Formats: sequence, C-alpha cells, structure tokens
Amino acid sequence: MATINDIAKYAGISIATVSRALNKPELVNAETRERVMYAARKLNYFKNETLKILNVKSNKLSIGVIFPYITAYYFSELYSGISKAAKLHDIDLVLYELRSENMSKEGLEDALSFARRHLVDGIMLAGYVPSVYDEIFESLDIPVVLLLGTHESAKMSAYKVDDIRAAFDAISFLVSRGHRNIGMISLPLTDPANDIVSRFMGYKQGLDFYKLPFSEEMVAYGKLGFDDGYSAMKQLLAAREKTGITAVFTAADEVAIGAMRCIQDAGLRVPQDISVIGFGNLSIANISSPKLTTVAQPFEDIGAEGVKYMTKLLTEPGSVVERGNFYLPYKIIERESVAAIMNRSFSYCDGKV
Amino acid sequence: MATINDIAKYAGISIATVSRALNKPELVNAETRERVMYAARKLNYFKNETLKILNVKSNKLSIGVIFPYITAYYFSELYSGISKAAKLHDIDLVLYELRSENMSKEGLEDALSFARRHLVDGIMLAGYVPSVYDEIFESLDIPVVLLLGTHESAKMSAYKVDDIRAAFDAISFLVSRGHRNIGMISLPLTDPANDIVSRFMGYKQGLDFYKLPFSEEMVAYGKLGFDDGYSAMKQLLAAREKTGITAVFTAADEVAIGAMRCIQDAGLRVPQDISVIGFGNLSIANISSPKLTTVAQPFEDIGAEGVKYMTKLLTEPGSVVERGNFYLPYKIIERESVAAIMNRSFSYCDGKV
Repeated sequence: MATINDIAKYAGISIATVSRALNKPELVNAETRERVMYAARKLNYFKNETLKILNVKSNKLSIGVIFPYITAYYFSELYSGISKAAKLHDIDLVLYELRSENMSKEGLEDALSFARRHLVDGIMLAGYVPSVYDEIFESLDIPVVLLLGTHESAKMSAYKVDDIRAAFDAISFLVSRGHRNIGMISLPLTDPANDIVSRFMGYKQGLDFYKLPFSEEMVAYGKLGFDDGYSAMKQLLAAREKTGITAVFTAADEVAIGAMRCIQDAGLRVPQDISVIGFGNLSIANISSPKLTTVAQPFEDIGAEGVKYMTKLLTEPGSVVERGNFYLPYKIIERESVAAIMNRSFSYCDGKV
Repeated sequence: MATINDIAKYAGISIATVSRALNKPELVNAETRERVMYAARKLNYFKNETLKILNVKSNKLSIGVIFPYITAYYFSELYSGISKAAKLHDIDLVLYELRSENMSKEGLEDALSFARRHLVDGIMLAGYVPSVYDEIFESLDIPVVLLLGTHESAKMSAYKVDDIRAAFDAISFLVSRGHRNIGMISLPLTDPANDIVSRFMGYKQGLDFYKLPFSEEMVAYGKLGFDDGYSAMKQLLAAREKTGITAVFTAADEVAIGAMRCIQDAGLRVPQDISVIGFGNLSIANISSPKLTTVAQPFEDIGAEGVKYMTKLLTEPGSVVERGNFYLPYKIIERESVAAIMNRSFSYCDGKV
C-alpha cells in the first residue's frame, strides 16, 4: 500500500511538503498541490487509506462505468455483459450517467470526480467520445477503456464492432435478397467521427460497390428514437415513387421499429412492400411486429471483454502489451422484416456483375 | 462531523476502547467491535474521515439504489425519475443490482456492504421485498426507503401505486368497453405478499364486483417476459371456445406484448378479436403494434418522491414525521389494443346492473 513516502518519491517532492499538501492544502501552492494529488491518486493512496478506516480487509477492485443514457435500450444489453464479467472477476461496478447534452470538458470532469468520491479504480467509458475530452485524456490519473466508441489516443483501448464494415454487410445482405433500391435512415452527418455516423459511410460504400442507384432522397436524417424513425420514414415514403426503394437500412433498431410502424400506418406491409433492417439487435428487435432483422452487435461480449482488459490493466499492468481498437465480430440476425424479392424484373447490378 | 468522542458517547463505550476498535480491531471482542462499527456508521464517521483524506470540501449526499434488474424495461422508467430528482437535489446516485435469484439475507448483506464501500448515505430499495430481509431490517444502520414494494415495518416508508385498486380499475375499464368475459395473465400466486401478485386480487375483485363469469381456464400463469406472455396466451386461446374471453388483462406490459403477438400468430386480430390491456406503461407500450393500452404507473414520480423523502431523512431527520405507504395516482392510457364491443348481444351484468 502506498505511503506518503511513495507519493513524495513519485512526485519528486519532499515528504514534509506532501504531508502538508494532504493535510493543510491551503498552505501549499496550487501547482504542488495538484502534483501531490495526482501522485496520490495514481498510487491509490486515497482508496487504501479509506479501506484502512473502513476496516475493510480485501481490496476489492471497482470499475466505474460511464454511460450516455442508462435508460437507453442498448445500455441494458451492454450492462448485462459487463455485470456478468464483473461477477466473475469479483469486481464492484459503479455506474454513472453522462448524458450526450453534458458531453463537455466539465461533464467529464464531474464524472471523474464522482468516480473518485466513490473510490473507483478504473473507468469504462461507453459510447461516442467527443474531441472535447482530449485535454482531460492527456493527464488522466486513472486507467480508461472505451466501449462502442473510439479515440485516436493509442493509450486508450476500445472494444466495438467495425461500424463501417457492419453497415456494408447489411447492404450486402439486402442485395442478396434481391433489393436494389435501398434507402437509409441515418444520424445527421455533422460529426463524421461519431461511430454511428460511420454506418452511413458503410451504406454508401455498399451502394458504390454493388453499383446501386443513389440519390439524396434515399436518405433521411434524424435522432435514434422510435418517433425519429417514424418521421424519417414518412419522408422516404413521400419520395418513394421517385426512388423506388424496396428496403431501408436504419442506423439503430429503435429507428427501424418506428419506420416499420410508419410503413404500416401508410397501409403498406413490412416486409412484402418494404423491407427494413436495423442495427444493434436490442431485446426490442425480438418483440416488434414483425420481428426485426438486424445487425447484431455483440454487446455482451463487448462489455465482458472490456472488464477483462480493465482487470488486467489494474492487477498486472505490465502484462498488458496490446493496445488499440479491438473489433468484435457482428452478425446479421434474420427475423421477419426483410423479404426476398428475387422475382422482380430488373437487371442485377446493371448487368455488369 | 462525528469524532471518536461522539462514537464513544453514542455507543456508551470508553474513548480508548473506541479508538482501539477502529485502529486495532483484533484487540477488541467481537460484540464491542460491532457496537463501535454500528455507531460509527450511524454517525457517518467513515464517510467524513474519507472526505477529509480525499480533501473533498462539500459533503455531497449519496443515495444507493438497489434494483432487482438493471436491464428490466421498468428500471429505465424508474431511474429516469430518480436521476432527475437527484440532479435537482445535487445528490450522487450509486446503483446496485440485486437480482431476484439472490434475494436472500446474504444477498442484501452484500448489497449493504457494497453501499458502505462506496460511501452511500441512504438506500432506496426497489421492487418486491421478501420476508428474508426482516432480520437485517431490524438492525439497519442506514436509512432505507422502498419503491414499488412494501414492508410491514412502519419504520420504512414506501412509494408505489395501489396495485389491487389499479388492477380493479383495469377491469372496470374493460367492462366500460363492453367486455364481459375477461381473462388474465398473472404471476403464479405462490407469494401473495408480492405486489405483482396483488394485481390478480384486483382482477378477481373486479370480476366479483361486476358479477362477471370466472373459471380456472380464464387465468394463465407465468413470469413477466415477452415469451412468458406468448405461451400463457396460447393457453388462454386453447380454452377460448369454452371461456369466450374477448379481453385479457396482463400483470405487465412485456407480457401483454407477447400475448398480442401470440394472438396475431394465431390469425386473430388485436383488438378486433381479442383486446389486451397491460400494466406499467413502459416505453415499449408505445412502440408495439398495435400500441398498448395499459395502466400507467407513475414511475418517474415514484422515483422522484423517493429521492425527495430520502433527502429529507438525511438532511433534516427530525422533520420527517409521516411514515408508511404512500400511494401515487395511476391512470389508464388508452392506445390501440382495446376495442369497444358495445354492439355484442349479451345482457350486461346479467341484467342486474
């Protein structure tokens, strides 16, 4: 367990000054105080002292999980994998919701200080990672692993699927079922670094690869909820005579379910008139009518792998040599929302394939 | 802030012994140690010491939320209310999942020791409260508020809806739409103290009150998932010729959505052939096809009221005079899954009403 001596050595500051910084911080200048605090956190000094006070014998590891929306359907899926792995490794989980609208430098700082107050040893950060976090990432005193999102910093490993390839394969799947005029409901393209926006790139690459027709009216943009899917689909239906779409790829399952309902309300059938494929494979994909064909993200595995990696980082830091983005396999789960339209009369890929 | 003196006074033990119990617990007998620890927890000694070490100025309150399934749809709804109220009162939330299968004395002890390790000031316990918790409840050193479930102990307040009355009113609603042969999908009746089982009692009271026919085949039992609803409905459909049911009341929304799908797969229509009413008003009720008519539990208000009450308990304990079960208002949200069958030819309530 780290002592004041260890902190002094780590920070290159005298023992007397360290002691003063911890006990009478007002007597020490801000920079020195910060250096002492950084070293103390880095060496787990606070947690060890607390466990001493609490008279807790076993130093159980704790992982903080920072999540954009604890109420989102996909949180449940991810949490399920995380909690199973945490139980296996005998680790405490401490959850924190950092909503999209609070994704600022201050928002992340609040999350980190929550993590400190509740004695967390490492952090898993789930979802999109905005660039405003960069500055904080540079002077982190706690290990972080990313889930579903990525960051260019090689110091931070990420577990996710390759969103571009997965979207491309969703298009391949629709093509294999005879579809040729394929629409998409996407997040707005304002932030190309967003992993969910990448799904649009995969869609576009699929269209290019199979030489399928594309026009602006084939894509509608919106957020990722049921209502967003509903109104985006309305737009796609309005342009249907012109675009001739027979299938729609959506950036998320909830959007797909909203789109299906919109199609049904317009007096059309899913999948006989329009096929819909989602992205995620949330539990709602299995209870919608019709059940949703979708790209399954291995949420449970992503959560479990993240915990495994973090445990290694915390218990045998020297042994972790591989860093970077780890892509987990996805698959397409075929249910009821995509029809095969092999019999339609069109020349496949302009006869070039 | 509590000192060793305060603990000594509270526990009726000498200061020297308290100091020994905290610093060299092995030198003190078990009973004394336990008394000192109890007093120390009760007086928030550990948390205050930790905050001193952490150099945290503001003593931010922390509420632990113990929940049976963080991945359940209804968790999201409840969490949403809890988190809004927590933000309003500037309170930290620390979530813990205590699954139904671990609802034992040991399970609750693990939850409480997790709460202590992560410096929680009060606990909100959501869901059903089994009687195996009684013993622990008797010597609690931390305030607890119940959400959705109740406990006979008057020391512990609970926020929920009156499940029996709400179920009764669901039946009244179906009767007002002309239904007379009404089935139910219920949790098994093995534990009558379970609040969800109470919904069966409300159903039965409704049938009695309106003098509606009842037979064993009108009720099917199962757990609360989509698949459970599906197979329970299969059973009700098999007995339909005999029972003549035109409507089904289900103990939970997910069950209702499974039941609707079963009806549709049997070639029947919801609501034209069979009406379905759920219980909960989860977000999935709004994305099912047809959208689900259901008894809305005010999850957000339940969560928010719980936080408000807990905050009062923690900050001005003397001011909390009202204790007991607080019933919040529910309402029936009419969507698309219940039809009016006024025109059917039967004599309403045997002509007696």
